[in-house]
Amino acid sequence: MKKIYLFCLLLGPVLSFAQSKSIYGYTPQSASAELKWEEQFDSYLKASNLDSWMKRLAGRPHHLGSAYGKANAEFMRDLFKSWGFDAEIETYQVLFPTPKIRVLEMTSPQKFKAKLSEPALKEDATSGQTSEQLPVYNCWSPDGEVTAELVFVNYGVPDDYEQLERLGIDVKGKIVIAKYGGSWRGIKPKVAQEHGAIGCIIYSDPKEDGYFQGDVYPKGPFRSAAGAQRGSVEDMPIYPGDPLTPGYGATPDAKRLDRSEAANLLKIPVLPISYGDAQPLLAALTGPVAPEKWRGALPITYHIGPGPAKVHLKLSFDWKLVPCYNVIAKLKGSEFPDQWVIRGNHHDAWVNGADDPISGMVAVLEEARAVGELVKAGWKPKRTLVYCAWDGEEPSLIGSTEWAEHHAAELQQKAVAYINSDGNGRGFLFAGGSHSLETLVSEIARDVTDPQTGISILERSKSLQLTHAATTKNKKELLAKKNLTIGALGSGSDYTPFIQHLGIPSLNLGFGGESESGDYHSIYDSYDMYKRFKDPKFDYGITLVKTGGRATLRLANADILPFDFKSFHKTVNTYLGEVTTLLETLRESTDVENQLISEKRYVYAADPTEKYIPPTAKSVVPYLNFASLQNAVAGLEKAASQYSDVQVASIKAGTNWTQLNPSLYRAEQKLLSDKGLPRRPWYKHTIYAPGFYTGYGVKTLPGVREAIEQRNWEEAQEQIEIAAKSIQAYTEAINAVSSQVNPAGVSSGK
Amino acid sequence: MKKIYLFCLLLGPVLSFAQSKSIYGYTPQSASAELKWEEQFDSYLKASNLDSWMKRLAGRPHHLGSAYGKANAEFMRDLFKSWGFDAEIETYQVLFPTPKIRVLEMTSPQKFKAKLSEPALKEDATSGQTSEQLPVYNCWSPDGEVTAELVFVNYGVPDDYEQLERLGIDVKGKIVIAKYGGSWRGIKPKVAQEHGAIGCIIYSDPKEDGYFQGDVYPKGPFRSAAGAQRGSVEDMPIYPGDPLTPGYGATPDAKRLDRSEAANLLKIPVLPISYGDAQPLLAALTGPVAPEKWRGALPITYHIGPGPAKVHLKLSFDWKLVPCYNVIAKLKGSEFPDQWVIRGNHHDAWVNGADDPISGMVAVLEEARAVGELVKAGWKPKRTLVYCAWDGEEPSLIGSTEWAEHHAAELQQKAVAYINSDGNGRGFLFAGGSHSLETLVSEIARDVTDPQTGISILERSKSLQLTHAATTKNKKELLAKKNLTIGALGSGSDYTPFIQHLGIPSLNLGFGGESESGDYHSIYDSYDMYKRFKDPKFDYGITLVKTGGRATLRLANADILPFDFKSFHKTVNTYLGEVTTLLETLRESTDVENQLISEKRYVYAADPTEKYIPPTAKSVVPYLNFASLQNAVAGLEKAASQYSDVQVASIKAGTNWTQLNPSLYRAEQKLLSDKGLPRRPWYKHTIYAPGFYTGYGVKTLPGVREAIEQRNWEEAQEQIEIAAKSIQAYTEAINAVSSQVNPAGVSSGK
Repeated sequence: MKKIYLFCLLLGPVLSFAQSKSIYGYTPQSASAELKWEEQFDSYLKASNLDSWMKRLAGRPHHLGSAYGKANAEFMRDLFKSWGFDAEIETYQVLFPTPKIRVLEMTSPQKFKAKLSEPALKEDATSGQTSEQLPVYNCWSPDGEVTAELVFVNYGVPDDYEQLERLGIDVKGKIVIAKYGGSWRGIKPKVAQEHGAIGCIIYSDPKEDGYFQGDVYPKGPFRSAAGAQRGSVEDMPIYPGDPLTPGYGATPDAKRLDRSEAANLLKIPVLPISYGDAQPLLAALTGPVAPEKWRGALPITYHIGPGPAKVHLKLSFDWKLVPCYNVIAKLKGSEFPDQWVIRGNHHDAWVNGADDPISGMVAVLEEARAVGELVKAGWKPKRTLVYCAWDGEEPSLIGSTEWAEHHAAELQQKAVAYINSDGNGRGFLFAGGSHSLETLVSEIARDVTDPQTGISILERSKSLQLTHAATTKNKKELLAKKNLTIGALGSGSDYTPFIQHLGIPSLNLGFGGESESGDYHSIYDSYDMYKRFKDPKFDYGITLVKTGGRATLRLANADILPFDFKSFHKTVNTYLGEVTTLLETLRESTDVENQLISEKRYVYAADPTEKYIPPTAKSVVPYLNFASLQNAVAGLEKAASQYSDVQVASIKAGTNWTQLNPSLYRAEQKLLSDKGLPRRPWYKHTIYAPGFYTGYGVKTLPGVREAIEQRNWEEAQEQIEIAAKSIQAYTEAINAVSSQVNPAGVSSGK
Repeated sequence: MKKIYLFCLLLGPVLSFAQSKSIYGYTPQSASAELKWEEQFDSYLKASNLDSWMKRLAGRPHHLGSAYGKANAEFMRDLFKSWGFDAEIETYQVLFPTPKIRVLEMTSPQKFKAKLSEPALKEDATSGQTSEQLPVYNCWSPDGEVTAELVFVNYGVPDDYEQLERLGIDVKGKIVIAKYGGSWRGIKPKVAQEHGAIGCIIYSDPKEDGYFQGDVYPKGPFRSAAGAQRGSVEDMPIYPGDPLTPGYGATPDAKRLDRSEAANLLKIPVLPISYGDAQPLLAALTGPVAPEKWRGALPITYHIGPGPAKVHLKLSFDWKLVPCYNVIAKLKGSEFPDQWVIRGNHHDAWVNGADDPISGMVAVLEEARAVGELVKAGWKPKRTLVYCAWDGEEPSLIGSTEWAEHHAAELQQKAVAYINSDGNGRGFLFAGGSHSLETLVSEIARDVTDPQTGISILERSKSLQLTHAATTKNKKELLAKKNLTIGALGSGSDYTPFIQHLGIPSLNLGFGGESESGDYHSIYDSYDMYKRFKDPKFDYGITLVKTGGRATLRLANADILPFDFKSFHKTVNTYLGEVTTLLETLRESTDVENQLISEKRYVYAADPTEKYIPPTAKSVVPYLNFASLQNAVAGLEKAASQYSDVQVASIKAGTNWTQLNPSLYRAEQKLLSDKGLPRRPWYKHTIYAPGFYTGYGVKTLPGVREAIEQRNWEEAQEQIEIAAKSIQAYTEAINAVSSQVNPAGVSSGK
């Protein structure tokens, strides 16, 4: 005791600091060295680099296929090279429609022609680069010309159409106007099309995205009356990436589908507009007043229609193949060159994209530069590092998807993990990903300091979760938990092909919550906006470098790869509880609702002077057999606990895991099902998927959960078995590792 | 069986109808007769009477103290006389301030002068009666002239000031602007004053009361930009009525307080304005953006301030005594003339008041006329009927309060029940009152047909409750309940002095929910508005006559007065569960919140670039001794059950209850406490009171509940004992009745 005390005194705070901390997957000696290298890594970081690279990369519009996008890719490739990476540009040939004709006008009861443009502002230096800007449009809308009465459909999600049905309103043959929010944008035209609409307008309501949120640009950062949101409406929940090459890379010689064969392309024309353009259209609607929750913040009474407002929508696009430039920079691992730690961020934007994606991209560049410096200082990555700057993320994760599909076999062999980032702002760490990596993320968050408060980003994020938890019960649960709770990944950035298609353990990291704005996918997502309202000194840019950098470094050099199957088990067990509760709740509510329906309660509660169609009775919810899934999860718990003991003992004994680490990082692939999810086989992960009707929003245990939600009982039972099998295979993979270390078996001590 | 079957066939539907129904408190023979008289009553009713009386009574402005108000009183007195009632006008002399000067202007950063007036509309015939209209004002605002920075305080309730404290914003020396909603209006200046504000503006936000709700007048019925809401800001939760004569009648020779001594008058000037007048003021505020829930539907970013908007508010009033004309019409009971069934509605309005209160008043008139017809046809009320048309309700229940205070001793001796109505519209029965009358109301609702759907108003109201219940659990509970669930009475109409001051069993009846509008307390509450948007053919006016009429008739002629103490027990038992749960929840949340505070979680979750004052730890919530109250409620359950058996046996045996009925209707007085509620002794009922900080909204078990809410543990314990004693006394009164009928005691059979 005394000796250690003296030792600490002599070597001062650095060592005492290092000694006080363990790193999951590292022996004490390795951890001590790792922490020192991380301190050195931090010492290299310069906010001024982030600033000047953002100024350069966001200096001109740089969407997929643009000249400036290509120049950016080359610029970054050269940077990577200058830092000692083996960097190249991998190019795919992908479909990318851009607008030729965009017309939206109201023909009656008044004439009105939508402006469909965002004005240049003197306060925003790049807003006037008109000739290079993509106009406001929804990418993947088909060509089309329609004229019809307008119907306001709220967010345009299935629940909204349920309500329309109650009101006796049919959108068949109509053009719908939906507001942004409540789902990913691509869901709106998809559901409209399912209901027979012939066109779809999506507008930004000031409630969610305008003056209701705060002062508008340029006075404040929120969306002004002329601001509009570009964005993809590819049916990404079917499959992302180039629609013509599903499941394989869009190499120049790849076989391409005909556009009409692409299952993720919609059939009805879609156009996004500003609230300035939307107000006259909405104000001209009559019919029922919209339900209270549908109403936005425009100074009008929101009516649903249909009509009398009649609109004419005409859209046509240039459907060309363009080159998609992914920058891939590798640094070869000294011990395990065939184990890859992949770190990525996209570089393409809808316009200038200072926030989305450059704020994340510049952090990745600085991370790579600091890694280069570390190497110069004598550090060696045991595993290969692969830095990626993706092109074509905005039109639907094209660059990452084509690359992941193209190199699928190699990636499933070599990829230890994929670490993603995207736009970054001021505030709190938001982390999502494979829950086997929750401990890795929590320890990193423990070791990175929040630049504004001086506490760890772990405690800061926990403070946000604690103070925003809905109930006292939730707060107590959070207080009792040591780890940071990380989210499950749905979609909306480049992790999707890695985790959901290939089963590569993935993370998504970013900061935000204190730099809210309304510049998303507009010309005002600019360097000027970012510097005034987001992260002016790049404090959180640097914090992202420290966070993402630690994830890369710790995965690169871990003795035992830091997968914590106990965290994964706890999380999956929660999901299992949710789906069983969902079924029970649905059964109880179906019974009660059916009674209300049979007693005509809805008819009697309705105003007889207004049109009202009561709901019809639903089929009784059966009991499903969850036993296989429950047994699988119980087996996983035992395996995770046993693995944990083996891992602790191995770290203590310094056992060599060289042969075992690949089994660890490939375990997640056991969670894939060969057939994929029903009606969307590209999505193979049985635990995480973007929702079929949410788009970005995750559905966990997606096969089971969505089948229950859709009242498809047979499919639900099938999916229970599929999920059970995948968890069983995962469990067996873990047990195989444990038994190789300790063939006699280890008592878990519990 | 056969005989009865034949009997039914012979006598046809009327008798089979009568036979199939029992009436609580009636022997089968009495019930059969009663049902026939009720049918006859219904046959007299004419919607055209309601129409023509509304046209007449709402024909000109008729506020307290107005010439037309006096003429209306005389008109109604003469009607009652013509129908055979002994009618007179009982006049009090009461304080009633009306405006002399009203100025509201913004002095910086821009000049703006509020219009403070509602324009005449060609679509509304009475809207141009400018010379007789009371201008827009808050009655009981003191005279005052203040200039100060403005602060937006949301609804201006205590929770809002909590949030302001977190933001480091103090309203001391400032003028606050609060929006209508979230509480009764009088709470807003009261709480502002408690926090040191020197003036208060209340505006109607279009979110709650304007275009957000629907098309505005005259296109639709909702409040337009120039519409504003008059209304009292007397501190009614202290005591209602004439502020100068608390607790006694404002007879001409009554001793009057000096105005400065009146505990229910506020000290800071208050003025209501339209959203047209409010928008420039709110738009000129800077400072923090208001929390999301605070924001309304104006097309601006809602900031809190303080300032830079600075406003000048100048108000002065004519503080005169005016005559207050109550019309009191009696029809002497044939058997029990000293048992009074009282039926009332106010007749004064803020302006023309076609809806509020004339739509209810004309139903009461038609009820009295039909009663007169019944008498001519040979019907006799056993008990005395007292019909009342109150004056001065709008300025704070003045007419009813002064009359109830003036005749307190006689009323506590004679009043069987007080049945109130007020404005009436299209839709669903909303009933509130003493829960011992829940069965009476349910049976009446069973027997009255909804004019739109042909089902009973009971089933229609239940359908509304069922389809709007928040949870499946709530729906199941409602499905399992036979009675209609009636609400508890807070305040806002003339029942308050009867139930809460005198302990007279009371009911409040009205229809609505399908004629929502924005004409409340404006010049547009007119006959034209009512006919276009409310109850055009007076279908629900007639339904109210049938409902209120049955309540009056059944109470007048019951063999055993229809008090159902089981319903009362069940309800009070629910309240007891609520207050014990409230304490437990508060204890648990206080512990967790104190932990979050001690761990600085709120500080760490806040944006350090913005001002934020974290909450401070609160004292630990102690365990309170609920035993006395739990024992009292358990005793009540037994007594109610025993009474029920006695009552059923008596009805069967035809026992004479002449001596016992007075004990039944006086039982509710046992629920009063001599000392009244803490800091507001005028309110004596221990089960029902308007909330000290809600105003109209009820607090049940108010002494206990509010002490817990205010974290006054000592007072909470005292109030538990007081409530227990009152329920015990009530229980003893019930047991006394039971034992007089059946001195040997009756087994409840349970």
